Amino acid sequence: MSPFALRLLLVATATVNAFVVVPSKPTTVRLSATVEKKTTAATEFNLNEYIMDKLPHVEKALDESLASDIPQTARIVEAMKYSLMAGGKRIRPVLCLAACEMFDENFHKAMPAAVALEMIHTMSLIHDDLPALDNDDLRRGKPTNHVVYGEDVAILAGDALLAQSFLHVAENCNDQPPERVLDVIRRLGHAFGPKGLAGGQMMDLECEGKPTGEVSLDDLRWIHTHKTAVLLEVAVASGAILGGASAADVERLEKFALNVGLAFQVADDILDVTQSTEELGKTAGKDENTDKTTYPKLLGLDGARAEAERLIQEAKKSLEPYGDKAVTLLALADFIIDRKN
Amino acid sequence: MSPFALRLLLVATATVNAFVVVPSKPTTVRLSATVEKKTTAATEFNLNEYIMDKLPHVEKALDESLASDIPQTARIVEAMKYSLMAGGKRIRPVLCLAACEMFDENFHKAMPAAVALEMIHTMSLIHDDLPALDNDDLRRGKPTNHVVYGEDVAILAGDALLAQSFLHVAENCNDQPPERVLDVIRRLGHAFGPKGLAGGQMMDLECEGKPTGEVSLDDLRWIHTHKTAVLLEVAVASGAILGGASAADVERLEKFALNVGLAFQVADDILDVTQSTEELGKTAGKDENTDKTTYPKLLGLDGARAEAERLIQEAKKSLEPYGDKAVTLLALADFIIDRKN
Repeated sequence: MSPFALRLLLVATATVNAFVVVPSKPTTVRLSATVEKKTTAATEFNLNEYIMDKLPHVEKALDESLASDIPQTARIVEAMKYSLMAGGKRIRPVLCLAACEMFDENFHKAMPAAVALEMIHTMSLIHDDLPALDNDDLRRGKPTNHVVYGEDVAILAGDALLAQSFLHVAENCNDQPPERVLDVIRRLGHAFGPKGLAGGQMMDLECEGKPTGEVSLDDLRWIHTHKTAVLLEVAVASGAILGGASAADVERLEKFALNVGLAFQVADDILDVTQSTEELGKTAGKDENTDKTTYPKLLGLDGARAEAERLIQEAKKSLEPYGDKAVTLLALADFIIDRKN
Repeated sequence: MSPFALRLLLVATATVNAFVVVPSKPTTVRLSATVEKKTTAATEFNLNEYIMDKLPHVEKALDESLASDIPQTARIVEAMKYSLMAGGKRIRPVLCLAACEMFDENFHKAMPAAVALEMIHTMSLIHDDLPALDNDDLRRGKPTNHVVYGEDVAILAGDALLAQSFLHVAENCNDQPPERVLDVIRRLGHAFGPKGLAGGQMMDLECEGKPTGEVSLDDLRWIHTHKTAVLLEVAVASGAILGGASAADVERLEKFALNVGLAFQVADDILDVTQSTEELGKTAGKDENTDKTTYPKLLGLDGARAEAERLIQEAKKSLEPYGDKAVTLLALADFIIDRKN
């Protein structure tokens, strides 16, 4: 087992067993309280096994996706690969493959979309890290793209990854009905456009400086839906579509992913308070010392906990029709929501 | 007639009548010397009429392409529209529609691709103008996107336009066989990826600082093919595909556009020398005072002129099978190559 795989196994084991949102009241926020009783062992085993099984396929597909024998493209491909192959949990690709497998056991059918999702996610990180945006020098413990290659190259590498993501889906779904492929491309385009990730980031920039009173719960939910949940939504939707799911199935899975994405953000906000006050002994989290609007600020800590639980229950409800077939997605949702702990 | 339309008519008339590359030897570089004899009047009339006829449709489609009734997207849509609706000659959309009309009189079939091409072209300008790249404050006489909205917004607006271009094609070609639509999306992705525009810009950055001796003719051709010609190629190809052209037709039109794009760049390089020495009375053009590698530097002025003519002859040859049907594309090629004069 590679050191990376081992680390991932340890992380997966640790987080599947952990409770995030309210460490003192685990049962109230556990994503799959009922599933847990019946299948805790199976879920944990499956999730680790599942991730271990899928990860090499994902890494291989990502690596091959940028192969080029044209010497003039060597430098830009190097810059694109630097960030695309920088590890990470590959949450979106694995979600995509898991959604596909609910409807077709050949998960390779969804691999082109899985690769495209990671390309889009990666390019959003490259551009986010730029000095004009978050100005981050480190990402996953490595210097960020613009630190290594310069801002000009980082901008171009991000652009090229975004274009490549659509090309990759259009070129590599030959065994699929073209209507399905177009549906996936449409959703990918939507997920990054003004009504997707780019729009969410923009709204976040607009709200950043505003005092709490001027940012509503609707604004906050809009930002999180579009900055975080939208890529989880398109991950499960594209996987399901390429697996042959019906429109009703796709809609259920999207609803699930939307609520998981929002629950993740509420959990993140809560942790910023609880970690610092209850665990780190500080009087307030970093969000509280800035103007940033958070769920605890708008709803209070108990209100935010209740909101997280409501979202988790909503997510669970969407997958009820699938019974045991949904176990992988439910376990992945735990993994996503819990990983901040 | 709107002031903009009037200006465009004047520009079109002026440039169609002008000879660019070698003002003193017009017949040697005129794109369509043989066509000219038979159809000069028709070509000039047609081109002006053609552009006037198509432009309102293109502007309307561009304007509608970013319509959004979601208030949270207002700011990013405003930033995207600021650059998308900033005028310009709409060369790529008009080329796309003209190519479509060679095979189907309903040019509206190609409009989604025409809009996508202008979105991609616009986003490349927004990102090119950023301080980390060309650092331009003005574009078409107006402050550049980042000057008006800030660098962070300009980066996001460019990203969103790129994603939106693919979404637009996927969503608006409902009357087309999905295989055709996928083919267009594949070509658009290719045109902006590492083997397209982004790769060409990257190679340009790499060669910028190098002394002339270290940049070969092949390097220069590679840069121009990928920075300039590639979007003209995909413009005619996508128009032809959506008009129902055969693979052989598409290949001929692409070859035409590739050579037009390269001829434009050679003409541009020649003008930098001839304008400054022969017209402006300076001893050398600005390219000569920098390390930038140009065709005249590599081939000499006469050699560069011969290369321009060779490219133009190649371009013409590709359209010979179409006779009079190719008149619009030939006139547009004149317009593209001549407009620098």
